[in-house]
Amino acid sequence: MRGKLITFEGCEGVGKSTQVRLLKEYLVKTRQEAVFIREPGGTRISEKIRDIILSIENKEMFGECELLLYNASRAQLISEVVKPALDEGKLVVCDRFIDSTLAYQGYARGLGFEYVKTLNEFVAKDCFPDATVYLDLNPKDAFRRKGGADKGDRLESEALSFHNRVYEGYKRASEIYSDRFVVIKPLGNKFATHEEIISALRNKGLIE
Amino acid sequence: MRGKLITFEGCEGVGKSTQVRLLKEYLVKTRQEAVFIREPGGTRISEKIRDIILSIENKEMFGECELLLYNASRAQLISEVVKPALDEGKLVVCDRFIDSTLAYQGYARGLGFEYVKTLNEFVAKDCFPDATVYLDLNPKDAFRRKGGADKGDRLESEALSFHNRVYEGYKRASEIYSDRFVVIKPLGNKFATHEEIISALRNKGLIE
Repeated sequence: MRGKLITFEGCEGVGKSTQVRLLKEYLVKTRQEAVFIREPGGTRISEKIRDIILSIENKEMFGECELLLYNASRAQLISEVVKPALDEGKLVVCDRFIDSTLAYQGYARGLGFEYVKTLNEFVAKDCFPDATVYLDLNPKDAFRRKGGADKGDRLESEALSFHNRVYEGYKRASEIYSDRFVVIKPLGNKFATHEEIISALRNKGLIE
Repeated sequence: MRGKLITFEGCEGVGKSTQVRLLKEYLVKTRQEAVFIREPGGTRISEKIRDIILSIENKEMFGECELLLYNASRAQLISEVVKPALDEGKLVVCDRFIDSTLAYQGYARGLGFEYVKTLNEFVAKDCFPDATVYLDLNPKDAFRRKGGADKGDRLESEALSFHNRVYEGYKRASEIYSDRFVVIKPLGNKFATHEEIISALRNKGLIE
């Protein structure tokens, strides 16, 4: 039987990495095998592409070039790691995936939501997520919760308006892909949110 | 006034590079300034991406990754070189451009004609060719003309069938983009073909 792909998405500071870690601990504890990956990178070629993206030498890089490099790196990761794991029936969990590109680059950075959607559908055509755990918290509340009210307020307005656009981008993605989006509002403590995620993924038959 | 972009396309062995060179000589002789470029490469970042594509170390690279790397390289070339030159009112001549990707990777290599078309339209959105000189000669005749009848016949059938698919891909592109395609059948000698190209580009008001 083909494996399943679960992705985690959300704005900065919503506790995404913590929830991925708690899921990993749960799966280890309950003896369920899973492959955990994180973008960008993950293969030898993807790392080389990542080096070009992140090198401070390459300041003259344009947004369109960067977008395509991220996707080239992802295409290699999918063909080399994700698809073979799914073909072997494994569970794959990915911290950020196609919806990050949609929200950050397609929407917030204005490279074109519809275009990035088409690009995603091409690049991930054989590996579309079976479920996307979306931690739905707006940037103001996320920063406030993370660093206290003052820190949230001190965010420069440009940065906040960028993150607000990311949030709007995710909202649009969650509407388009309502079938696979598992929307979780991380309002309580991290363990309560973890329980909610486990429960939702069990209900979908993706984990035990 | 915005400059113009002329691209040259065609299968292997149709005399494309020769015609680009003859056009360059004509423009120099008649004192018409032009920027000549050739893909892949052309900028510092594009060269780095090219190194990843061409490195023999990277044998495990999948077709989807390669396609996106070519396009990332092109996106940088467009933003850094082509667009600024067009904005300055210059004539730009490019040896192979978006239609090569359509014919070779979208069609012949089966990565998806419609997808590559969308990708091209995104990457080259501000820099679509004003005219595409397409040297229309089928692969069998091209190889025969270049190397004599024997050499053409000795081509292994797999290679020939690949080039035939490229030819079909170009045919489809020329139908979709009939407005900008200038179809030239290079049946006579190279100077006769050159005259035909000059005449067609002058008729379109792209050169004097």
